[in-house]
Amino acid sequence: MAPAKKGILERLDAGEVVIGDGGFVFALEKRGYVKAGPWTPEAAVEHPEAVRQLHREFLRSGSNVMQTFTFYASDDKLENRGNKLSLTGAQINEAACDLAREVANEGDALVAGGVCQTPSYLSCKSETEVKAILKKQLDVFVKKDVDFLIAEYFEHVEEAVWAVEVLKETGKPVAACLCIGPDGDMHGVSPGECAVRLVKAGAQIVGVNCHFDPMTCVKAVKMMKEGVEKAGLKAHYMVQPLAYHTPDCSCQGFIDLPEFPFGLEPRILSRWDMHAYAREAYNTGIRFIGGCCGFEPYHIRAVAEELAPERGYLPEASEKHGNWGAGLEMHTKPWVRARARRDYWENLKPASGRPLCPSMSSPDGWGITKGHSDLMQQTEATSKDQLKQLFDRSKSQ
Amino acid sequence: MAPAKKGILERLDAGEVVIGDGGFVFALEKRGYVKAGPWTPEAAVEHPEAVRQLHREFLRSGSNVMQTFTFYASDDKLENRGNKLSLTGAQINEAACDLAREVANEGDALVAGGVCQTPSYLSCKSETEVKAILKKQLDVFVKKDVDFLIAEYFEHVEEAVWAVEVLKETGKPVAACLCIGPDGDMHGVSPGECAVRLVKAGAQIVGVNCHFDPMTCVKAVKMMKEGVEKAGLKAHYMVQPLAYHTPDCSCQGFIDLPEFPFGLEPRILSRWDMHAYAREAYNTGIRFIGGCCGFEPYHIRAVAEELAPERGYLPEASEKHGNWGAGLEMHTKPWVRARARRDYWENLKPASGRPLCPSMSSPDGWGITKGHSDLMQQTEATSKDQLKQLFDRSKSQ
Amino acid sequence: MAPAKKGILERLDAGEVVIGDGGFVFALEKRGYVKAGPWTPEAAVEHPEAVRQLHREFLRSGSNVMQTFTFYASDDKLENRGNKLSLTGAQINEAACDLAREVANEGDALVAGGVCQTPSYLSCKSETEVKAILKKQLDVFVKKDVDFLIAEYFEHVEEAVWAVEVLKETGKPVAACLCIGPDGDMHGVSPGECAVRLVKAGAQIVGVNCHFDPMTCVKAVKMMKEGVEKAGLKAHYMVQPLAYHTPDCSCQGFIDLPEFPFGLEPRILSRWDMHAYAREAYNTGIRFIGGCCGFEPYHIRAVAEELAPERGYLPEASEKHGNWGAGLEMHTKPWVRARARRDYWENLKPASGRPLCPSMSSPDGWGITKGHSDLMQQTEATSKDQLKQLFDRSKSQ
Amino acid sequence: MAPAKKGILERLDAGEVVIGDGGFVFALEKRGYVKAGPWTPEAAVEHPEAVRQLHREFLRSGSNVMQTFTFYASDDKLENRGNKLSLTGAQINEAACDLAREVANEGDALVAGGVCQTPSYLSCKSETEVKAILKKQLDVFVKKDVDFLIAEYFEHVEEAVWAVEVLKETGKPVAACLCIGPDGDMHGVSPGECAVRLVKAGAQIVGVNCHFDPMTCVKAVKMMKEGVEKAGLKAHYMVQPLAYHTPDCSCQGFIDLPEFPFGLEPRILSRWDMHAYAREAYNTGIRFIGGCCGFEPYHIRAVAEELAPERGYLPEASEKHGNWGAGLEMHTKPWVRARARRDYWENLKPASGRPLCPSMSSPDGWGITKGHSDLMQQTEATSKDQLKQLFDRSKSQ
Repeated sequence: MAPAKKGILERLDAGEVVIGDGGFVFALEKRGYVKAGPWTPEAAVEHPEAVRQLHREFLRSGSNVMQTFTFYASDDKLENRGNKLSLTGAQINEAACDLAREVANEGDALVAGGVCQTPSYLSCKSETEVKAILKKQLDVFVKKDVDFLIAEYFEHVEEAVWAVEVLKETGKPVAACLCIGPDGDMHGVSPGECAVRLVKAGAQIVGVNCHFDPMTCVKAVKMMKEGVEKAGLKAHYMVQPLAYHTPDCSCQGFIDLPEFPFGLEPRILSRWDMHAYAREAYNTGIRFIGGCCGFEPYHIRAVAEELAPERGYLPEASEKHGNWGAGLEMHTKPWVRARARRDYWENLKPASGRPLCPSMSSPDGWGITKGHSDLMQQTEATSKDQLKQLFDRSKSQ
Repeated sequence: MAPAKKGILERLDAGEVVIGDGGFVFALEKRGYVKAGPWTPEAAVEHPEAVRQLHREFLRSGSNVMQTFTFYASDDKLENRGNKLSLTGAQINEAACDLAREVANEGDALVAGGVCQTPSYLSCKSETEVKAILKKQLDVFVKKDVDFLIAEYFEHVEEAVWAVEVLKETGKPVAACLCIGPDGDMHGVSPGECAVRLVKAGAQIVGVNCHFDPMTCVKAVKMMKEGVEKAGLKAHYMVQPLAYHTPDCSCQGFIDLPEFPFGLEPRILSRWDMHAYAREAYNTGIRFIGGCCGFEPYHIRAVAEELAPERGYLPEASEKHGNWGAGLEMHTKPWVRARARRDYWENLKPASGRPLCPSMSSPDGWGITKGHSDLMQQTEATSKDQLKQLFDRSKSQ
Repeated sequence: MAPAKKGILERLDAGEVVIGDGGFVFALEKRGYVKAGPWTPEAAVEHPEAVRQLHREFLRSGSNVMQTFTFYASDDKLENRGNKLSLTGAQINEAACDLAREVANEGDALVAGGVCQTPSYLSCKSETEVKAILKKQLDVFVKKDVDFLIAEYFEHVEEAVWAVEVLKETGKPVAACLCIGPDGDMHGVSPGECAVRLVKAGAQIVGVNCHFDPMTCVKAVKMMKEGVEKAGLKAHYMVQPLAYHTPDCSCQGFIDLPEFPFGLEPRILSRWDMHAYAREAYNTGIRFIGGCCGFEPYHIRAVAEELAPERGYLPEASEKHGNWGAGLEMHTKPWVRARARRDYWENLKPASGRPLCPSMSSPDGWGITKGHSDLMQQTEATSKDQLKQLFDRSKSQ
Repeated sequence: MAPAKKGILERLDAGEVVIGDGGFVFALEKRGYVKAGPWTPEAAVEHPEAVRQLHREFLRSGSNVMQTFTFYASDDKLENRGNKLSLTGAQINEAACDLAREVANEGDALVAGGVCQTPSYLSCKSETEVKAILKKQLDVFVKKDVDFLIAEYFEHVEEAVWAVEVLKETGKPVAACLCIGPDGDMHGVSPGECAVRLVKAGAQIVGVNCHFDPMTCVKAVKMMKEGVEKAGLKAHYMVQPLAYHTPDCSCQGFIDLPEFPFGLEPRILSRWDMHAYAREAYNTGIRFIGGCCGFEPYHIRAVAEELAPERGYLPEASEKHGNWGAGLEMHTKPWVRARARRDYWENLKPASGRPLCPSMSSPDGWGITKGHSDLMQQTEATSKDQLKQLFDRSKSQ
């Protein structure tokens, strides 16, 4: 029998760098297994081979954490706005746990059960109701004995605190991430204050994920760290940003960009952007460093390659990647071989090839948040009338 | 026993649209299984599950052709410039055939055995030597009984004609693609003249693949078609372009762009760009429409969705994709639901999020082609001295 | 004899919109009469016809204020770093007053004598010394009986306060402008606090000029206004921004941009940008609205045209300008006639025609301010050695 | 009495570089004296001081030629589409000649009388009618004894040939410029063929002006030169391009760009662009090098500074301009002093400061040319109905 793996807190307490995985819903949408709009993870049941393969690619790329593919797998989200699924949340959550565990055991990775924000909260359901929804996912995670828990992608710190409180009941280590930037949560609570509340609620690891580009997320986590330290508390820090450049976002992040979700290609970060990100995150004192939407396996590999000196080893997938482009030494064309060097790639300002497109966009800003009628959960599909109203409003903005 | 599938020529003769697959080396590089630089396909043996999964994603997205993952799998390329592999070309080619066949049989797809340009030709080896190299791959394809053959990614029509001549000996249908744009091949032979030579050599299908963006490739194939028709010949036409915008390329295509191959992200086409491409290709009279480097499964799905009226059906992966963004009707945020319409996505000019970067680049132009000493094959790795010379030259350009 | 003109304070007290003039040093540099680097106004003596003509163009475009062309005409600046002039400050200041008066009398404009920051201050000279330098210009303004005084282009509020104190002694109305943005002066004093100090020193009109684009300057003046009001004080407000887009500036404004001063062309505002600026300034409560570097006569005309409803009349130069492009109704080409409408020009996103250039720059940030040895005044020219050191330092940034 | 100046042909025959002037209608529009749309030169009578000043600025900047400000001063153009002027063509032409002569005599410049294309031609009037219109301007030029004649801004070589034939009757040297690019005239006649026809008609100097950026114009003149030489003819060559970058133009040049004429600012060339242009024009064998729309005095000065080694002297206005930015050695800030060097400005890629704008535009392409009803001359103003039709058509393009 293999020796027990070290737990997440043991690793972080020991000062190790823990590398997270990348963005499952976006990657699997491009592979044909997730529907943009509902973004639900039924592929864990419907196409386990596709989910397993993606887990494996992240493992090979250096991930130490396999997050269960259970994003938006709460029962209230699964039946929102006409997303007709014949599967229960429990079925999806169980299948996702099994897949994560199977691949984690192929290497030195831990399984993290993940929950995220609920339509119930946006629809102004009570704390009790929201907690009950989250509890249902958690029951599966306990049954499947995941290694630790992550509450992530919360726009409101209030709901995140509720989630942490539920997760703490399991006795497992708890990480909590908001999808916020330096401006704070949707109610204007600053990153520092958000972090303090999460730590006080019991989270051992706090940070941000999604919604903003890497450098912006690192900045927000830095503010969290300063808040926590100023409050005389202690925590570990994590960051799992987008792999999209978002200099033009407002407080709600990339959701507001006109390019979301089907025109984000020109914003995708290169592997070299990820080197810079990993270094900056490390220098900021963050030790759990991963990715969210847009992160493909090669992005995670770049994080692992940048931090190889600190970690002491390269990920398996680096067998197929020369350091800083060194593989190009084998290229047929001499001018491409001349690109096999770090300063070339570090200084490159990559062109978009889109001379008719701008470099930044004006984000949508409808100024709507929790409790607005347009945000309420509804089981039935958005009606033609509802859509027409939205289209008209959109054009008059 | 299942009825025999219709062959490639039967389909094209009947006026059917045949959808190709996407770019294996680039997609698998990002997934961690192919090394940029040598770009060789040993993953077919080393990680068959990864290759199988990618085949399957393209099949689900609408591909009617599974190309064997045998790009650059000629023996002379496998041992070029220090790319130390313990596998023979035959082993890789066989494994690739088996994977393509396995997935093709899961649907209505054909298996195409593929060969491409050789270092031997660039090193000025004789016609006999070059043909012998290609023949070795072909022996495997015959043994594995692929459905048809594709000679693709040739920069010089002379070598492509040799390849067609070798392929014709098998008796299987032969397609031939050059990686050229409207300016013609590396020796300045026009697309029209190139096509005539390929058809005369026996290719039943001609076209271009790789090196340029979709609209540029379609334009080049249009010139081929005009050349063939002017010569009183007949052929079918195919196109498998890049999924990168390349308005700033010179005659050698994206290889010359400073972003090749590790900074191309801002140039990636969106799914909506692919709708426009598929329509333009169709209108030009091209019926074999696929993709090359950069094409991910969702790009092929977009081609299949655009041509669904002509083909009469949607691909399987469209279960997870609403037409023209319709899935967004289920999105939580009302302003994102307002994007669930065709005119929104058709008119979007997506921003790069990179205000410090330009929209176009100046391509490298070393003016080197077949026979130059820097292009010679060498078995040993590029030496430190050779690299230093290249770096210096690069900086003085 | 003509009735006496209303003074500047009468006009502002009555709620009138007062339109300033544009940027003399930049406009005359392009016309060949001012040297970029020293930026001194000896053209008032050397080429009075050129200065007179520019005054006249601004008058025709709607300016109610002719600022004497005395920018940097303090004696310490005239002899800085090898700028060998045979003219005294007094000669230049006198000639400039005469030109401004001559043209002002051709219309309903006032003459404003202007002083600006001194090399003496940056070289850490004493309050007494700095005030003495300013006093010398002032003596001319009193002798020539200008209508009011403007202390402008101060980076440090301390020096601006000294200037106001000197100017107040004349008994003439005093306006004071800092060249700062929302981040405040070079010592970090906020716009609100700066304004309070200026008002307390006796300035009746406060605002900002130069260094930032119009919307940024308006924002800074808004902060000034809020500061003044919060302090229970009263003032009038003015703004005279750049005619360059500067979204990428740091606290020291466009001086830090790599394009300063010879590559700013792509940043020049269009007349339509000026409409938006004039409206925003007006809505913010600013009533003295003009321009600084980059403002050409047609930019001032656009300000006057936007505010024609409030002012009740169009400027003279509008005889040669149709409202919102209406003159295009007379164009020969029909597709240009189709551009003779407001919504066309309001919505245009003008292209740069420079696909190899980015849309933003990284500003220089040497982090040097008052008192640093590199900022010290020196009479002799910058030496070759000094230049070499600067070039080397520049390249290593 | 001063010795007679050398004529234009003497200078060119001697191999001298002759520098033209810049763009009067665009410069004076910005100064408030010309109306965009009709673009007629009545300012020569209405505001002679403004026209004289602009002549003088170009003279100081190095121009050897003062073109009479008689652009579009043919009688048929003066009364087109509601442009109500109380002045006759003769009055304007006479005043313009006097102003050009006055300033030419202040230096070593020649006076060139200019004619350009007529609405009569576009309205399909006969050769006799068109020639009669041109003859009326010419009568003034003969009476005022200009030094030579320029027929410029012709889109159709046929009309330009007619113009040359009329001009030749005066016995004065004749230069002829088309406003075309490498694609040739509006009827598709190539630059080479156009030049041959003009030379055969009697033009001693041929070239292009307006409509395209400098490098494009130089390329077109190069094609003219090759055509003339291939035909065994001889000529001198001239070029007077736009000062706007136009990489995205179609055959009709900048008129078709959406930014024409009120949003062209981001496209304005810097002085450094002009250095490159002057060198390229010189290397191509062009010896009459000037500018058209957008050229300000400092652009002409840059041409003169680049060609100072060949000409042997700097222009007068260089007293106020250090070579390659040398004046910045006197700048107060050290990081700006560090920009006082050639390689800095030569390599700068200036940013637009407009992240919401693209770098290129899609030109309008209505596909209308000579004879189309929308191009017909009409004396009365464009009617509301005509405008509405144009607006509707514009929106549906």
